[in-house]
Amino acid sequence: MSDETVQACEARVRASFDMQGAMRLIGARLVRAVPGEVEIGLAYSPAITQQHGFVHGGMLVAALDSACGFAAYSLMPADAEPLTIELKHSFLAPGRGARFTMVGRVRKAGRTVSFCEGEAFAHAVDGARRLIATMSTTIMTVTGRASVRKQSGRASD
Amino acid sequence: MSDETVQACEARVRASFDMQGAMRLIGARLVRAVPGEVEIGLAYSPAITQQHGFVHGGMLVAALDSACGFAAYSLMPADAEPLTIELKHSFLAPGRGARFTMVGRVRKAGRTVSFCEGEAFAHAVDGARRLIATMSTTIMTVTGRASVRKQSGRASD
Amino acid sequence: MSDETVQACEARVRASFDMQGAMRLIGARLVRAVPGEVEIGLAYSPAITQQHGFVHGGMLVAALDSACGFAAYSLMPADAEPLTIELKHSFLAPGRGARFTMVGRVRKAGRTVSFCEGEAFAHAVDGARRLIATMSTTIMTVTGRASVRKQSGRASD
Amino acid sequence: MSDETVQACEARVRASFDMQGAMRLIGARLVRAVPGEVEIGLAYSPAITQQHGFVHGGMLVAALDSACGFAAYSLMPADAEPLTIELKHSFLAPGRGARFTMVGRVRKAGRTVSFCEGEAFAHAVDGARRLIATMSTTIMTVTGRASVRKQSGRASD
Repeated sequence: MSDETVQACEARVRASFDMQGAMRLIGARLVRAVPGEVEIGLAYSPAITQQHGFVHGGMLVAALDSACGFAAYSLMPADAEPLTIELKHSFLAPGRGARFTMVGRVRKAGRTVSFCEGEAFAHAVDGARRLIATMSTTIMTVTGRASVRKQSGRASD
Repeated sequence: MSDETVQACEARVRASFDMQGAMRLIGARLVRAVPGEVEIGLAYSPAITQQHGFVHGGMLVAALDSACGFAAYSLMPADAEPLTIELKHSFLAPGRGARFTMVGRVRKAGRTVSFCEGEAFAHAVDGARRLIATMSTTIMTVTGRASVRKQSGRASD
Repeated sequence: MSDETVQACEARVRASFDMQGAMRLIGARLVRAVPGEVEIGLAYSPAITQQHGFVHGGMLVAALDSACGFAAYSLMPADAEPLTIELKHSFLAPGRGARFTMVGRVRKAGRTVSFCEGEAFAHAVDGARRLIATMSTTIMTVTGRASVRKQSGRASD
Repeated sequence: MSDETVQACEARVRASFDMQGAMRLIGARLVRAVPGEVEIGLAYSPAITQQHGFVHGGMLVAALDSACGFAAYSLMPADAEPLTIELKHSFLAPGRGARFTMVGRVRKAGRTVSFCEGEAFAHAVDGARRLIATMSTTIMTVTGRASVRKQSGRASD
C-alpha cells in the first residue's frame, strides 16, 4: 500500500468524519484511517457518563459504529456511502478509563453488503490497556448521495 | 398497578436517569417510566447528526440502550443496578425526523439476567410516526453499588 | 386477504420448505404460512438434544431461522429468494418441552433487505405454553435462482 | 500448557460432546479441544441442506454454537456447565463446500459470564478454505447439574 493511497484514504474518511456532529459532540476524534481499518479515540469526560460515573455504553457504541462504518467506507467506490443495517455490541467490561480507543475492521467487503468487526479498549492513566467491548456489524453500500436520500425516502414508505 | 407504585417507579428511574451525563449531553429526556417499560424522547439537533444530516445511529442506540436498561431496572430490587451485557440494534430506516421516541420493554425478567426489547420511532413535523429501529438486549442484575464497583474491578482482571 | 392468496402463499412456501433436507432431518414441519408470517413445529426427540437432555439450542435456531426466512420469502416477488445475512437468537429459557413452535414474522419488508423477528415457544405435555427464545434477523432479497448461484460465486471470491 | 492438561481438557469436552444427540444427528464431530478453543467438523450431506442445496445456515449455527459453548466449558470449574444466553451469527457466504470447520474461542472468561467468538470455514474439494460465517456469543456459567435443572425450573416460572 503506497503512502499516497493511505493519505488519500485518510483524507476521504476525515472529510466525512468531520461532518458527523455527533462525534464532535461526544469528543471523539479520528486517530487513523487506512484501507479497511479505522481508529477513533475518545477521552473520558463526565459529559459522556452513565449513572455510576463510567462512560455510557451507548457513547462507546456510537464511536465504534462510526469506526466500523468508516472502515467499510474506506474500501468503497468514490461515489458510495455506508449505511449501517445492524450492529451487535458486547460489553466485556465497564467503560472505566482515562481514554478509549475504538478500532473498526472490515472482515468481508462485498459489492452490496460488508461485514465489519470492532474492538474498544480502555486505557488507564498508567497506560495499561484492556479490551472492554467487541462489535459485529453489517453495512450496506449505497451509491451516490442522491441514493442515500432516495434510500431514506423509500425506507419511510 | 396503583398510582403510588407508578409514581415510585418513575421517581426511582428518574433519579438514576438524571445522573447520566450522556443523556443530558445528547438532549434525551425521560418521558415515562412504569414497571417494565420506559420511554425516552430525543429532539432532532445538528449536534447529534452523522455525515448526511440524519441523527447518528449511535445516538439512537445510546438512548434506546438507556430505555431498555431502565426498563430492566424498574423491576429490580431496591439495592440492584442494571449492567448491559450486550445489545443488538437493527436500523430499519434512517434517523430522519423532528423528534424521536425510544421505548424499552422487559421481555423476561430473571433473577440474574433480564431480556429486553426496544423500538425507536421517528416523528415527522406533521406528527406522522414510523418505526425506525429495533433492539434486543441482555441485562445483568448487579446487587449494590459496591458490587458494581467490584464487578468492574473483576472485569478488568 | 382472500383464501386464494393464503393458499397460494402456503403452497409456495411449502414447496420450498420441502426442499430443505435439514428441516426433514430434525423433524420440523411447516404448520402455517400466511403472507408475512410462518409457523414451524418441532417435536421433542432424543435425536435433537444437547448434553442435559433438553433440545439443542442450535436446532431451535435452525427452525426459527427457517420460519423467519420463509416469512420474508412469503412477501417477495415470484422470482426472488431469501438469503439470511445475520441472525441474533436469545435463549430466554432452556428447550424443555414435549413440542415446540417457532413463529417468524416480517417486521419491515424492503426491496433489498427485510427485517424479521421470531419467537420460539415450548409446549408442555399438559398444554402449557411458554416463550423460550426470540430472534431478530436481516434477510436479503436475491432475484432468481441464477442470482443465488451468482451471489454464492461472488461471495467466494 | 502440559500435554496432560490438553488431554484432560479434550477428554472432558468429548464426554459432554458425545451426549449431544443433535451433533450426532447432523454428522458433526469433535476435532480438537484445548483450553479456550474448540474445533468441530461437519461433512457436506444432502441431509443437512436448505432449498438450494447448500448446507442450511441453521446447521452451521448449531455446530458453531456447540464449538463456542465447549470452548467456554473448557475453562470452567469441574462442577460447572455452560448455558448459552444469546448468539449472533453473520453469514458472510453461503454454506457451499465439501466439508466445514467451526472454531469457537473464548474472548473473555468471567466467573458468571463468558464471551466467545466463532468462525466457520468451508473447504472445497481441492482443499481451498474460505471464511463463511462469524459468531459472537454470551455464555453463562451454571454450577452443578442440579443447578442446570434448577435454572431451567426458575426460567419457566
